[in-house]
Amino acid sequence: MIDITERVRSNAHTDIYMTAEEAAQLIHPDDIVGVSSFTPCGYPKAVPLALAKRIEKEQFKVQIWAGGSLGDEIDGALSRVHGISRRYLFQSNPELRRQINHGEVAFSDVHVSTFPQSIRENFFGQPDIVLVEAIAITEDGALIPATSIGLTPALIDSCDRIVVEVNVTQPLCLEGMHDVYGLPNPPHRKPIPICHPGDRIGTTTIPCGWDKIIAIVPSAIPDTPFPLKPVDTAAKQMGKLLVDFFRREVKNGRLPQNLLPLQSGVGSVSNAIIGCLAHSEFEHLSIYTEVFQDGMLDLIDAGKTDIVSTGSISTSPQGLKRFYDNIDFYNKHIIIRPMEITNNPEVARRLGSIAMNTAIECDIYGNVNSTHICGTKLMNGLGGAGDFARSAYLTIFCTPSIAKNGDISAIVPMCSHVDHPEHDVDIICTEQGIADLRGLCPIERARTIIENCAHPDYKDMLTDYLDRAIEETGCAHTPHILTEALSWHQRFLDTGTMKK
Amino acid sequence: MIDITERVRSNAHTDIYMTAEEAAQLIHPDDIVGVSSFTPCGYPKAVPLALAKRIEKEQFKVQIWAGGSLGDEIDGALSRVHGISRRYLFQSNPELRRQINHGEVAFSDVHVSTFPQSIRENFFGQPDIVLVEAIAITEDGALIPATSIGLTPALIDSCDRIVVEVNVTQPLCLEGMHDVYGLPNPPHRKPIPICHPGDRIGTTTIPCGWDKIIAIVPSAIPDTPFPLKPVDTAAKQMGKLLVDFFRREVKNGRLPQNLLPLQSGVGSVSNAIIGCLAHSEFEHLSIYTEVFQDGMLDLIDAGKTDIVSTGSISTSPQGLKRFYDNIDFYNKHIIIRPMEITNNPEVARRLGSIAMNTAIECDIYGNVNSTHICGTKLMNGLGGAGDFARSAYLTIFCTPSIAKNGDISAIVPMCSHVDHPEHDVDIICTEQGIADLRGLCPIERARTIIENCAHPDYKDMLTDYLDRAIEETGCAHTPHILTEALSWHQRFLDTGTMKK
Repeated sequence: MIDITERVRSNAHTDIYMTAEEAAQLIHPDDIVGVSSFTPCGYPKAVPLALAKRIEKEQFKVQIWAGGSLGDEIDGALSRVHGISRRYLFQSNPELRRQINHGEVAFSDVHVSTFPQSIRENFFGQPDIVLVEAIAITEDGALIPATSIGLTPALIDSCDRIVVEVNVTQPLCLEGMHDVYGLPNPPHRKPIPICHPGDRIGTTTIPCGWDKIIAIVPSAIPDTPFPLKPVDTAAKQMGKLLVDFFRREVKNGRLPQNLLPLQSGVGSVSNAIIGCLAHSEFEHLSIYTEVFQDGMLDLIDAGKTDIVSTGSISTSPQGLKRFYDNIDFYNKHIIIRPMEITNNPEVARRLGSIAMNTAIECDIYGNVNSTHICGTKLMNGLGGAGDFARSAYLTIFCTPSIAKNGDISAIVPMCSHVDHPEHDVDIICTEQGIADLRGLCPIERARTIIENCAHPDYKDMLTDYLDRAIEETGCAHTPHILTEALSWHQRFLDTGTMKK
Repeated sequence: MIDITERVRSNAHTDIYMTAEEAAQLIHPDDIVGVSSFTPCGYPKAVPLALAKRIEKEQFKVQIWAGGSLGDEIDGALSRVHGISRRYLFQSNPELRRQINHGEVAFSDVHVSTFPQSIRENFFGQPDIVLVEAIAITEDGALIPATSIGLTPALIDSCDRIVVEVNVTQPLCLEGMHDVYGLPNPPHRKPIPICHPGDRIGTTTIPCGWDKIIAIVPSAIPDTPFPLKPVDTAAKQMGKLLVDFFRREVKNGRLPQNLLPLQSGVGSVSNAIIGCLAHSEFEHLSIYTEVFQDGMLDLIDAGKTDIVSTGSISTSPQGLKRFYDNIDFYNKHIIIRPMEITNNPEVARRLGSIAMNTAIECDIYGNVNSTHICGTKLMNGLGGAGDFARSAYLTIFCTPSIAKNGDISAIVPMCSHVDHPEHDVDIICTEQGIADLRGLCPIERARTIIENCAHPDYKDMLTDYLDRAIEETGCAHTPHILTEALSWHQRFLDTGTMKK
């Protein structure tokens, strides 16, 4: 029996305590189910698992609306029983990805900062029911979130059927780390008063109210964060290159001594870069980002940063243990915010973010594909990179120069899908080097990217393409040979390698 | 003799009065020359014409940095003598375009809102000399701009050699219409306190100071704005469709009765849409945009809007006459701001802009190309659409469904260049209809765009492509046949038509 007595700070609502199985009965076929989370932490677990069991018997589907990737208890369990008809935003579950790439699940992406407003304004429906993980419920029915906030304020504001999973594995010491600020729809918006990553502007709880809470489900299933891949040589080299680049920018007076607020995407490359900064001479760094990864624990431990503003605590299992073990220390250095604030272009532009995100591929002109394999198959999704890329002070995309043992070049003649147009991209970094594209015209960009970032195995092929494209088009602004532009991808599909 | 006595409000600086020819001598070969303007209004004219004459004899080149397109006195006169080595941002001059597309001029684009900060932070150099058109200079050396502000505050803050053309053809009644607010570099930024398009937050003059002004040149060359193409049937139809769409959005509670602040790109289609709103039942509309076109005069005349916030007065010659003739009336309804404010993502997101811009082509998945013809040749440039597209509340792209008498379909299998990724695009509008893409997955988007927006001549071809792409990829998330995706463009290049 899970005891949530001390976590529900009112005795007047024991009538809505129920099991996960009972709560799963509150969900109807074809419902839009909104869930808390931002990356696989702070997401409801018990009710989705019970729902999956119910769906296995009864055979129906629901829509899942989330702020980002989710743990296996939702994306895995529900997709394995073919229970998801539509899924927003971002995912990283193998079975769900397979279904999306076979037309079984309708998936679409918008930028992290815009999804909450799309829900608030009812652009394409609103949730029928919302499942939220909380560490506690206050006396007046406000929710104290767990390791993420994500979409929850927007979901709660748009729905009056809220199921709260009170998770006893999430420590009560998380209380006070959150800063909840809900954005009204225009024309009622005022400036978001964040001028420094550490500025607190809201409340530590999510307003909800007892009238909306239809079920309280005790839960003892811990977050199951993704393991972090070991930092490989390429990632380490990119980290080193970027730290050197920051040094030059400071020396040239283009960045302050303590840089500007760093944003860093999900994954081992981003994590390695943050790790490199933890071992650098830089001091008083600030982080205003959407996900908190292991490297940021290093940064805090090393005394390199006073504050990390994030959307979630998305560490590895080891990182999560490290965070929990020292939570009284870390919670002074971390603020968890809703995704409509972490990724708001207003704040990114004002703070002057340094945006560091990962590309699947870049083309010679600096366009970036971060979502689609060979232009057709979804990898994970867009995430929040675009919010930062366009509004940041400096926009950096990183990728190892090759993949699949060298059969794929991450630098291609033309991206097979464009998520971040050339206009948004200042810097491209591979383990080979850095291409500083600022102020360059397309042909200059191409020469720089090929020279500095392409893998030696592909340099001649890329230069050959560029030279012939220049000749064929009479040196057009952005030379391309349309019959060849996507041929590298096709060759990979046909032969298993982009090499000739 | 041009008398500027009443326009230069200090007698202490007559020693720096000079002719355009003398001022042109202050420019050195390879200089970065910053110029005022935003669209062809409020740009310096006399000195560039004199510079072109000098370059014709002496044969050298300069860089021209401007906020947007310029009149023929700069882009035309200087490119005809092969005097431009590099040009930022946006242009619409035929000869300059030819040189850009033949590798003679290095041209590159960034978003309108980011160029000023790139200059302020010295990302790729700073101007050696700045030419500004002003209607007057105040006693303390501040400049009163003419019909645009554009880049001028950033240019002046980054350079101490300022040449002021005092243009007597620009009426002194322009004084008071401007609202100049310069953005410091981070980490020193505070919220931009605009919560309504009509909020005034700055000064009516551009701070400069006599110590920076190295020349004052009297000028009597009027703005030569571009003629506006007559509104054709397709543009009228798109205007009508969008007004209907707005009606439905209001009815469904997704927009307030008076809509939200409208942004409208350059061109006859955008102008037609604004014209349609002037004749609609909508009241108390507000405009927060970058260019003021003729349709907005209609909107003000019809009492449909109290305020238009813009970056420039970019009307047709007839519109400019109409504006000048009633300037005492219009100047109560118009605020002219710098481009770092007109296009700032902070303001666009806060106000909840309705962004309406023009596409060259859209693909079936909703990606938009607004800059490149057949993926290689620059048309005009990016402009400010991207600032609004990503941060707006509702992002709309318009294009006639066909061009070149039907030989080009504006709806193609894959865009040959992507400026606005699918993730940014809510609505596509052609004269055929409106595709509301909100919340749809890629295949749903494709069916909707083909059904609602494609020209009947191309519908079957597009559906055929989509169906085969679905089959070939096993219904991947975003089905494409890479060997065919750009074949429509190639067919047009080879045969003069996209039709088979």
